Amino acid sequence: MTKLEKLLRPESVVIIGASSDEKKVGYAALKNMIDCGFKGRLYAVNPKAERYNYEILGVKCYSRVSDIEDTIDLAVICIPARFIPSTIEELGEKNVPYVAVITAGFKEVGEEGAKLEKELVELVKKYNMRMVGPNILGIIDTIAPINASFAEQTPIRGDIAFISQSGALLTGILDWSRAEGIGFSSFISIGNKADLDATDFIEALGEDEHTKAILAYLESINRGEEFIKICSEVTRTKPVLIIKSGRSKAGAKAASSHTGSMAGADTTYDVAFEKCGVIRADNAEELFDMAFSFSCMPIPKGNRIVIITNAGGPGILATDAAEREGLELAEISPEFEAKLREFLPPASSFKNPIDALGTAQGEDYGRIIELACKEENIDGIVVILTPQAMTEGQETAERIVEMHEKYPEKPIIAVFIGGESLGPAIYYLKKHKIPTFTLPERGVGAMSAMARYAKIKNRPEDEPIPEIEVDKQRVEEIFKKVRAEGRKTLYGTEAKEVVKAYGITTPAAKLAKTSDEAKHIAKEVGFPVVMKITGEGIMHKSDIGGVKVGIKNEEEVEKAFTEIMENVKKHYPNAESLIEVQYMAPLGRELITGILQDPQFGPLVMIGLGGIYTNFLKDAAFGLAPLSYKEAENVLRKTKSYTLLKGVRGEKPSDIKAIVDTMVKISLLARDFKNDIKEMDVNPFFAYEEGKGISAVDVKIVLN
Amino acid sequence: MTKLEKLLRPESVVIIGASSDEKKVGYAALKNMIDCGFKGRLYAVNPKAERYNYEILGVKCYSRVSDIEDTIDLAVICIPARFIPSTIEELGEKNVPYVAVITAGFKEVGEEGAKLEKELVELVKKYNMRMVGPNILGIIDTIAPINASFAEQTPIRGDIAFISQSGALLTGILDWSRAEGIGFSSFISIGNKADLDATDFIEALGEDEHTKAILAYLESINRGEEFIKICSEVTRTKPVLIIKSGRSKAGAKAASSHTGSMAGADTTYDVAFEKCGVIRADNAEELFDMAFSFSCMPIPKGNRIVIITNAGGPGILATDAAEREGLELAEISPEFEAKLREFLPPASSFKNPIDALGTAQGEDYGRIIELACKEENIDGIVVILTPQAMTEGQETAERIVEMHEKYPEKPIIAVFIGGESLGPAIYYLKKHKIPTFTLPERGVGAMSAMARYAKIKNRPEDEPIPEIEVDKQRVEEIFKKVRAEGRKTLYGTEAKEVVKAYGITTPAAKLAKTSDEAKHIAKEVGFPVVMKITGEGIMHKSDIGGVKVGIKNEEEVEKAFTEIMENVKKHYPNAESLIEVQYMAPLGRELITGILQDPQFGPLVMIGLGGIYTNFLKDAAFGLAPLSYKEAENVLRKTKSYTLLKGVRGEKPSDIKAIVDTMVKISLLARDFKNDIKEMDVNPFFAYEEGKGISAVDVKIVLN
Repeated sequence: MTKLEKLLRPESVVIIGASSDEKKVGYAALKNMIDCGFKGRLYAVNPKAERYNYEILGVKCYSRVSDIEDTIDLAVICIPARFIPSTIEELGEKNVPYVAVITAGFKEVGEEGAKLEKELVELVKKYNMRMVGPNILGIIDTIAPINASFAEQTPIRGDIAFISQSGALLTGILDWSRAEGIGFSSFISIGNKADLDATDFIEALGEDEHTKAILAYLESINRGEEFIKICSEVTRTKPVLIIKSGRSKAGAKAASSHTGSMAGADTTYDVAFEKCGVIRADNAEELFDMAFSFSCMPIPKGNRIVIITNAGGPGILATDAAEREGLELAEISPEFEAKLREFLPPASSFKNPIDALGTAQGEDYGRIIELACKEENIDGIVVILTPQAMTEGQETAERIVEMHEKYPEKPIIAVFIGGESLGPAIYYLKKHKIPTFTLPERGVGAMSAMARYAKIKNRPEDEPIPEIEVDKQRVEEIFKKVRAEGRKTLYGTEAKEVVKAYGITTPAAKLAKTSDEAKHIAKEVGFPVVMKITGEGIMHKSDIGGVKVGIKNEEEVEKAFTEIMENVKKHYPNAESLIEVQYMAPLGRELITGILQDPQFGPLVMIGLGGIYTNFLKDAAFGLAPLSYKEAENVLRKTKSYTLLKGVRGEKPSDIKAIVDTMVKISLLARDFKNDIKEMDVNPFFAYEEGKGISAVDVKIVLN
Repeated sequence: MTKLEKLLRPESVVIIGASSDEKKVGYAALKNMIDCGFKGRLYAVNPKAERYNYEILGVKCYSRVSDIEDTIDLAVICIPARFIPSTIEELGEKNVPYVAVITAGFKEVGEEGAKLEKELVELVKKYNMRMVGPNILGIIDTIAPINASFAEQTPIRGDIAFISQSGALLTGILDWSRAEGIGFSSFISIGNKADLDATDFIEALGEDEHTKAILAYLESINRGEEFIKICSEVTRTKPVLIIKSGRSKAGAKAASSHTGSMAGADTTYDVAFEKCGVIRADNAEELFDMAFSFSCMPIPKGNRIVIITNAGGPGILATDAAEREGLELAEISPEFEAKLREFLPPASSFKNPIDALGTAQGEDYGRIIELACKEENIDGIVVILTPQAMTEGQETAERIVEMHEKYPEKPIIAVFIGGESLGPAIYYLKKHKIPTFTLPERGVGAMSAMARYAKIKNRPEDEPIPEIEVDKQRVEEIFKKVRAEGRKTLYGTEAKEVVKAYGITTPAAKLAKTSDEAKHIAKEVGFPVVMKITGEGIMHKSDIGGVKVGIKNEEEVEKAFTEIMENVKKHYPNAESLIEVQYMAPLGRELITGILQDPQFGPLVMIGLGGIYTNFLKDAAFGLAPLSYKEAENVLRKTKSYTLLKGVRGEKPSDIKAIVDTMVKISLLARDFKNDIKEMDVNPFFAYEEGKGISAVDVKIVLN
């Protein structure tokens, strides 16, 4: 670990606001630092140092930071909020690199607090310091070790790091983990994350040799692009598992009222996590089941597992779970089967799940596991045991541990269904770092997460974003003109020009002021044409008779022009309106694409089924801009419509290449103008037969 | 309990095959009967009774059953399979009403075993006895109490009944439940269920005052209709929770190889469970979380909950889970809020979740819970506690128990996030029958299951199946004719006549042998017409040029006739073919309906989106025939297409009443001819605008 080394594993620490009053946070933090076995230099600061005889709990105490002659790596602050700014200045003057502000009463309590918090951030920046918090439980690291927190306990030493936006959740997990025997390397409360946030810690822990898996409980992510960049790198070497809460609408409401932070829309988080290889846990139980397995077992090579059991029922439950979770049951090779038949009763099941029957002894389990470890087409092993009359729980547990030691490259998960009589065996397994569960589904779930991560870890390098020649300047001009006219919404003709500048096919269209102009344009763009009213503030164009389609000749153009103008006057007597005359593109498969803006992660590109089905089938998928060709295709594949586009019922396939190309171009537009485009819709967007391209029939762009 | 009373709570029991050899099942069963505290008369039978001095483990032992002078309620059989038939005869002669056959080696081991099992069933029938098993762990009932099993332990007394098709799973759950402190009333292994099956036990336990919830692990259900009938009744008084394994394809394979039973298709189980109010658990953990809550807490009145917490993070996790699970967060009334403000710090959150902050004491929890218990718009309470510096775990637990005793009608679920320090408080809660979980999601899941059951319990009476006048005789005639001609597939014209006989609108159509006949028919049915080749074995009619649409006059009929015949001859030179001439119904919203047969549950009616979208969107829903109007409408509502049918984008709604009516009629046809119709498709089936009905354009029926 190079980043934040002196924060998480400091050589000298000062507790500012240290106290001998057991009820005070300053007492707990100092006591924890002592009790955890911190090996560095520890100091206390309290303005009433004299009253304590310059010593609290045996630690040297100073009236003020500046009195300490030593250099300080980390200052832990537990004094009332209002005194903190001046303390930060003192620390800054002393060149202290890191501060952890435990004190609450900042952004989370309202405007006053937010102001004070802003002040802290400015001071910290001024002195080139980095700050954790404010409003945190503290920082715990079992490697250093340090426990600069007011937690009641210190975690067991282990190799999972846990970053949490909720301090109370940390205390709960800590208490639970000690009972379960799960250990942690770092235990970090980020609180209001006014300066250092989860991304900083993920980056630092990504480089930490003592940390095998990084877990986080987050309510929001601020620096979206940075988060994606860091996680993309870290997930290539170790798993990053996150619960992002506020998933539900109601939850999001609670999240924002809680830490005053704006939670992003949920889709964006799913898209972002997928992009950078973060595994999203649905709940805390899943998070820790995964973490426990990752910390104990190697990553499997693939998703083919074998289930070994002494009873049919649990084997079926595990099989069901495996299929649900995307794991594959490995084929049992004839050679493997032959070797099993040498010692298992003939009534055993030699398919997968391997059912060794209720008579299976520890020795039998050991032999089956050993054979499975040697099979090349088996990536992971799930061992299920039910306590039957002849079952040897402890003996079986010992064989599992032995086999894991002998074949450490093959992940093994144990499912021991029981409690009272199997308790000691379960304890033995956990103690020997075999992930052990009581019920098949959770064991299989943990194995599945490992297999998913194997795929993430070994994913190919990101394809570069294509450099396509675009006319950026033209788009700038159009936007400038629109803004100059005091508009936010582009005319359809302008919006079409924008996509055209990015190389997207769109039917020719122009605006006409008079019937003669309209006729002229119609001849230019080619019959048949669509004529559409255009004007600031005109809504529901079709409903008011402002749109005419399938106009075949000049005569019809004239008639349509008059009719549209009359229709529109009825509803908008004062509107200054023009009529858009557009070549009527032939019908194709109706799709929709567009751009959404996410406050955290920037622009997203959407693709989905268009037309009447859009709203009720909601068949759409999203990708973060910019997209490579491969990414765009992967997004498209996520829609159900993809099957349809590939051609069904003997129909010719649609031009998928052109659709993907369009998505990439839209994503470049989104990237290049992310500060301009508020939202964009291409709806409908016709996809034609393979090789025949697409047509962006109707384009809508709204600027910021 | 009136049914199976003497089986589950017998007054006299004999263990046949009792033994003093500790390794034998006959020893374990006898020992368990003694150890569990059975209060009735207990006997042992062993052919070598003399050698044992007519006594085993202090229980009187006989050489043969007939020697026992007492009447026997239950005979538990542990002797080798081949000796069982003669023993059953002896028991039959003695009028023993119930036998439990623990011995394995029947259907599950192959053909020989299946034959022996069949023999047992016949003997049992002959003597009017009822049998559990063979191949079971045994029967345990903590109310009687009896433990006629070879399990290593006896469950804690409680009020959950558990029926399992897997004996080993029972032993695992038993071991686990003792460690968790969860109690059971009955613990029943049904094994090969050659005679008594899960349905019999659900019926009996449904009437048992000692059982508050019925759980089952099932791999298959045999008497589908009976199962539905019984469960429909039982679920009106107590919850029935089932894990049906073999849910996945691979799982189903394992299930059938395991107990030799055919697992039904999974959709059918979902449909069937919903029909009769059974709650399906996805996994064992969920099953027991639910069961624990049902056994401890009253059923909530609705789905509005309040979450009370001392930390924001876990509150948000619970909120997310609540939304996912369909629970509603109750609005906190101004009066409620005012009362909370009297004692909670102002920085608390007075919205739902109520966050009483980390300083909340046990007393505070007690007051909030009491206020929540009194709120009419709160149906259930989830209490979350994280162990912070000032947290009073034990005190809070005691207040929860106290409030539950004071307000027993309001369900409370506790979520105590912790382990080591909170352990004693968690133990206290569980001991006092407060369902307690470590993580918010599981607690909320259990509450949600209770709310779901509240809805099931209070559901309105089933609407009667409508009596519609149908021409059943006409359908019988058609089927008879088809069979007489050696066909299984009906001609399109015949299939249309069938649906017409059941009052379903279908376009007029007739078969023509000659061009003249075709012209005549066309005039009769009305132009435009569709002409379609018809003949046994002719496939891909459209592809070979066997279908012509939009034929407007006699001239076109003649031309089409010649062309179709020529096209078809190229592919089927020897086919005897006719041409169906059908009125071409105007286009409507394209739907699909039809009939599927399920081996366990009988015919199902399907409804879904038709046309090109059918296969790739898979927007279909199923109902078990026959359907009432209400049931049919509920099935239709499950499709996404329902939104479309109600009218989108300003389109007129489709004739939903006519669609529902058609579904009901199809379901009556399915019921009336369940032994004849193998499969049926109405595809497409056009739905017109409201009030304009439907048209079954293409009907396909295949007979058994």
